[in-house]
Amino acid sequence: MQSKITVAIVGVGLIGGSLAISLKEKKFAGHVIGVDKNAANLKTALDLKLIDEQADLEEAVKKAKLVILAIPVDAIIAILPKVLDLVTDQVVMDMGSTKEKLLEAVANHPNRGRLVASHPMAGTEYSGPEAAIPNLFTGRTMVFCDVTQSDEDAFELAENVSDLLGMKSIFMNAKEHDIHTAYVSHIAHITSFALALTVLEKEKSQGRIFELASAGFESTVRLAKSSADMWVPIFKQNRHNVMDVLQEHIRQLQQMYDVLKVEDYDTFHKLIKKSNKIKRILK
Amino acid sequence: MQSKITVAIVGVGLIGGSLAISLKEKKFAGHVIGVDKNAANLKTALDLKLIDEQADLEEAVKKAKLVILAIPVDAIIAILPKVLDLVTDQVVMDMGSTKEKLLEAVANHPNRGRLVASHPMAGTEYSGPEAAIPNLFTGRTMVFCDVTQSDEDAFELAENVSDLLGMKSIFMNAKEHDIHTAYVSHIAHITSFALALTVLEKEKSQGRIFELASAGFESTVRLAKSSADMWVPIFKQNRHNVMDVLQEHIRQLQQMYDVLKVEDYDTFHKLIKKSNKIKRILK
Repeated sequence: MQSKITVAIVGVGLIGGSLAISLKEKKFAGHVIGVDKNAANLKTALDLKLIDEQADLEEAVKKAKLVILAIPVDAIIAILPKVLDLVTDQVVMDMGSTKEKLLEAVANHPNRGRLVASHPMAGTEYSGPEAAIPNLFTGRTMVFCDVTQSDEDAFELAENVSDLLGMKSIFMNAKEHDIHTAYVSHIAHITSFALALTVLEKEKSQGRIFELASAGFESTVRLAKSSADMWVPIFKQNRHNVMDVLQEHIRQLQQMYDVLKVEDYDTFHKLIKKSNKIKRILK
Repeated sequence: MQSKITVAIVGVGLIGGSLAISLKEKKFAGHVIGVDKNAANLKTALDLKLIDEQADLEEAVKKAKLVILAIPVDAIIAILPKVLDLVTDQVVMDMGSTKEKLLEAVANHPNRGRLVASHPMAGTEYSGPEAAIPNLFTGRTMVFCDVTQSDEDAFELAENVSDLLGMKSIFMNAKEHDIHTAYVSHIAHITSFALALTVLEKEKSQGRIFELASAGFESTVRLAKSSADMWVPIFKQNRHNVMDVLQEHIRQLQQMYDVLKVEDYDTFHKLIKKSNKIKRILK
């Protein structure tokens, strides 16, 4: 059992704050330093005791053993070279939702080995330090990317974090990761945003929507509450894969439209039966 | 407090079975007669004690005070005239998810007043008698359509059922109902079916989807487990409204695709912020 360490968390929002809660609870983190360009978020994180102190990036990295980057993915890409410039024996885990461009940006950095590219497949539609909750990660999957590029001790510490959080660690290369997340996460968010816009656009009597909204509607549109500041950078960084999946999704919807138009209900029935096969890959 | 009555439930699936559970539990139904063209479902419903006896339609209607039609909406339309032919002082509640064509089909029936058009905004993605659960309706909305066409005593009994189930009763005309449900229910199902097809189409390594599937994906694709036998008739009966909403939804998705294509991230940010307004009309 190692002694408690100091953890620097850059971005004290839903992910960073929830990590702070869990790593303290598991007696892994002895001291948590928060870094955030948003002063109000830092104050809230201190008030909620998610973090023990606030500091600027340089000071936080110097004091910490583990540095966690939990900010929008474009912001991670922007500061990651600087963070790696600052580290000596620290371990850096980025929580970015896309990996290919992020890892390209530091591929030749002399301290690349200190970075362990990590993507916890967990979240809610809420954001900010107030949204941080215990057990956000329990039972979820942690994807580690291109781990052969990480130093052995760095990866061991990161895997230890995943275990402590109660997560299942899986491994992918960055390219593969970005394709898979486009399917299982990014497209679901785009669909939800578009569905919300559809309803808001066409429906005038909003009280009526509220009265009628069924459980199915709520679960499908829930993701449309998600933060634009987080998601636009994801779509930007994973633009090629997202466009590819989105094009296929539009094609599937257009097919359903066309089938309805010509009243070919046998084909519609077959399409739904085929889509039911998703059961196999869901709980 | 009225004495317990005999209820005939045509279609002993998710909705019919769950109604049977709740109406017995609330001491409203003293005896429940099941009618179903599927003999296996009837046997399961008897085994699960959802129903007390099985009977054919004519016998069941004759014995009952309340007749509930909980079968796919095209099947309701097909048998509703015959059911109304059979009733004297019985009350008929159909559970159809679309109403305009259904009510047109019996508009001039001499016993039209015995029918109370009812749509419980409740369900799960599962079907069949095994899917029946207690409290499926609690806290949900019951939409009554064109109630001025129902006899006063018939409507009172139906409203009593809604109250007993712990539902909030609201009132709409059939045309309005079908437009609203296209937005808050039917389109969410189409989106979910299409999303499942997109993933199944493009993703080859299915083990990977399962490992990666996040909570967001699961909630968005959950509806794609829904029954084709139930949903094709809904899309058929509400074809015009569903096509209208689907067209708008495809337009919204295409707009997002176009914005990504030209890398206009400011517009994408604005679209997401706009879609976030759905918060106002969700819990």
